[in-house]
Amino acid sequence: MTKNNRPPLTQLVQRGELMSADCPSREILLHMTSRWGVLVLMVLAEGTQRFSTLRRKIGGISERMLSHTLQALEGDGILQRVSYPEVPPRVEYTLTPLGQEAAEKVSALADWIEVSVPRFLQARADRVRKP
Amino acid sequence: MTKNNRPPLTQLVQRGELMSADCPSREILLHMTSRWGVLVLMVLAEGTQRFSTLRRKIGGISERMLSHTLQALEGDGILQRVSYPEVPPRVEYTLTPLGQEAAEKVSALADWIEVSVPRFLQARADRVRKP
Repeated sequence: MTKNNRPPLTQLVQRGELMSADCPSREILLHMTSRWGVLVLMVLAEGTQRFSTLRRKIGGISERMLSHTLQALEGDGILQRVSYPEVPPRVEYTLTPLGQEAAEKVSALADWIEVSVPRFLQARADRVRKP
Repeated sequence: MTKNNRPPLTQLVQRGELMSADCPSREILLHMTSRWGVLVLMVLAEGTQRFSTLRRKIGGISERMLSHTLQALEGDGILQRVSYPEVPPRVEYTLTPLGQEAAEKVSALADWIEVSVPRFLQARADRVRKP
């Protein structure tokens, strides 16, 4: 119990409800499944990474979008940012235990998409033949 | 083999590569994990739905965004749209077998987020305490 005799928020919210427009789960889903969030989670699942490595591994991501994505995921407690006082400065990103679980779920989806690409292309080709 | 002696695209592409900027898997991922794509997949996983039902079940979605999301998922072969010649017109949306698999993966992620909301809120509260 907190000082004002109300249980903390984490006890009041038992489970999120994604169908509800004002549930905080909506924002978490948005960050995890954002254009770049999925790909950042996939690379961090391999282990701690530096900013420059993330940028190199994720084809097409800009510096600005990578910063933005990392900040959002850090805000959700999915990753931890550690800055070492070196010259040149070294900044590393690591998944938290919560983030590791998140990355597992996201990777399962991503793997399935990669494996299923031929079926998606076939479905698209079929649609072109019979418009 | 096609007429020009090249194997069809679906045989050339063995597996997608999400880290590559120009792989078609990127677009599929975007549609499935778009702001509304996840929620549409979750509702359709329960069975065939009419447009109006989808709109009612998904809090906060506009008519325009629902149309847009349904069109993108139809284009990827994830759902099938059937229009019945009735007055008033009846339009129904059903997951294809490919879409059912997609919905399973997406729902696993969504379920995990809903269950984990208290931990996300706790992580956020901890960050506020030690900025």
